Amino acid sequence: MAYIDLQNDLPGIRGPMAFRPETAKPLNELAEILLHDDNNTLSRGERELIGAYVSSLNDCFFCQNVHGALAQHYMQCDMQFIDNIKKDFLSSNISDKMKALLAIAGSVQKSGKHVTAEQIDHARELGATDREIHDTVLIAAAFCMFNRYVDGLGTWAPQDRQVYVERAPRRAAEGYIDFDLYK
Amino acid sequence: MAYIDLQNDLPGIRGPMAFRPETAKPLNELAEILLHDDNNTLSRGERELIGAYVSSLNDCFFCQNVHGALAQHYMQCDMQFIDNIKKDFLSSNISDKMKALLAIAGSVQKSGKHVTAEQIDHARELGATDREIHDTVLIAAAFCMFNRYVDGLGTWAPQDRQVYVERAPRRAAEGYIDFDLYK
Repeated sequence: MAYIDLQNDLPGIRGPMAFRPETAKPLNELAEILLHDDNNTLSRGERELIGAYVSSLNDCFFCQNVHGALAQHYMQCDMQFIDNIKKDFLSSNISDKMKALLAIAGSVQKSGKHVTAEQIDHARELGATDREIHDTVLIAAAFCMFNRYVDGLGTWAPQDRQVYVERAPRRAAEGYIDFDLYK
Repeated sequence: MAYIDLQNDLPGIRGPMAFRPETAKPLNELAEILLHDDNNTLSRGERELIGAYVSSLNDCFFCQNVHGALAQHYMQCDMQFIDNIKKDFLSSNISDKMKALLAIAGSVQKSGKHVTAEQIDHARELGATDREIHDTVLIAAAFCMFNRYVDGLGTWAPQDRQVYVERAPRRAAEGYIDFDLYK
C-alpha cells in the first residue's frame, strides 16, 4: 500500500498519476515524445530498453517490467533476452552503438557527472548522432525521476511478470497520452 | 562546452532545451505546475527550496543556484540562509514540517527505496498533507532528472552566483512556460 492515500488502488505510477492529474499530464507528454514518438532515429524498442535498463539499475520493479515488456514487444524477443541485457549488456546481441548508449545511460543513473567525454566520443564513433546522445541522456535522467516517483511513494506492483508482457501490446498501440489510467 | 553540439551557447538546462524544444515543453510544464503554480499549500519558496536542496545533494551547480536564488527571492532572505539550509537544514530557522519534507526529499535523492514509512508519518504528524508529501517526492524526483540532464550533457554554468540572484525576480515573474530561453 502506498505511503499516502492515493484514493485509488492502481499499481505503480498509475496510482500517483490518477491522484495528481495536473502533473501526470506533462509526465506522460514527456514519455510520449521520448519513448513513443516516431520522429526518432532510435527505435521505440531501443528507447524502451534504455528506460528498462536504468529502471533495473534503480531496482524499480514496476518500471523495469513495464518498459522491459514494451522493449521485448517492439524487439520481438522474449523477456529472457531483455533480462540478459539488464544483467550484462556488453555480452548481449545488440549493436555496438546501442551498447555505447547503454553505457552512457548507466553513468547518468549514477549521476550526471559520471558521464565522460570519452563515453560520448565512443558512442559518436559508433554512429550515434547528437540527437541520439541527447535523448539517451534525457531518457536515462527521466527514468531516474519516474523510478523515484514510483518507489518514493511506496506504490505496489503486480509481482507476476506475465501481467506486464500481456499489457505491452496495448500500451504500444495507445502510447502514453491517449490512454485510460484506470484500464 | 557541452558534450554535444547544442547549436547555441546558452548556459545550463537552457542549452539542451533550445536544442530539443519538443522535450523542453513538457519539462517546463512540469516545473511550472510543481514550482510556480499558485494552487499549492506549499509556498513557491518552499518548493524551490526542495529543488535547490536536492540539486545541492546532486552537486549540480547550475540548478542549485538557479533554484536557490529563486528560493531566497520568494523567502526574502539572502543566499547565506539558503546555503545554511543546504548544509544543515535541521539547524536552520525553517518550520519543523519543512524539515520533515526536506528529509523525505533527501531520501528520494538517494533512491525512492530510501524513503521510509516513518519519515512519511513524521511529516504527517507535523501537519504535512498527502498532496504536500506527493509534491515533495515528485519535486525531489524531478530534480534528480533535471540535474542529470544538465550535468550528463556537460553543459556550462556561470560561476558568479550573483548572476543567478539577479535573474531570479524575472524568472519568478515569468514562471517556467512563457519565457524566452534566449534572454
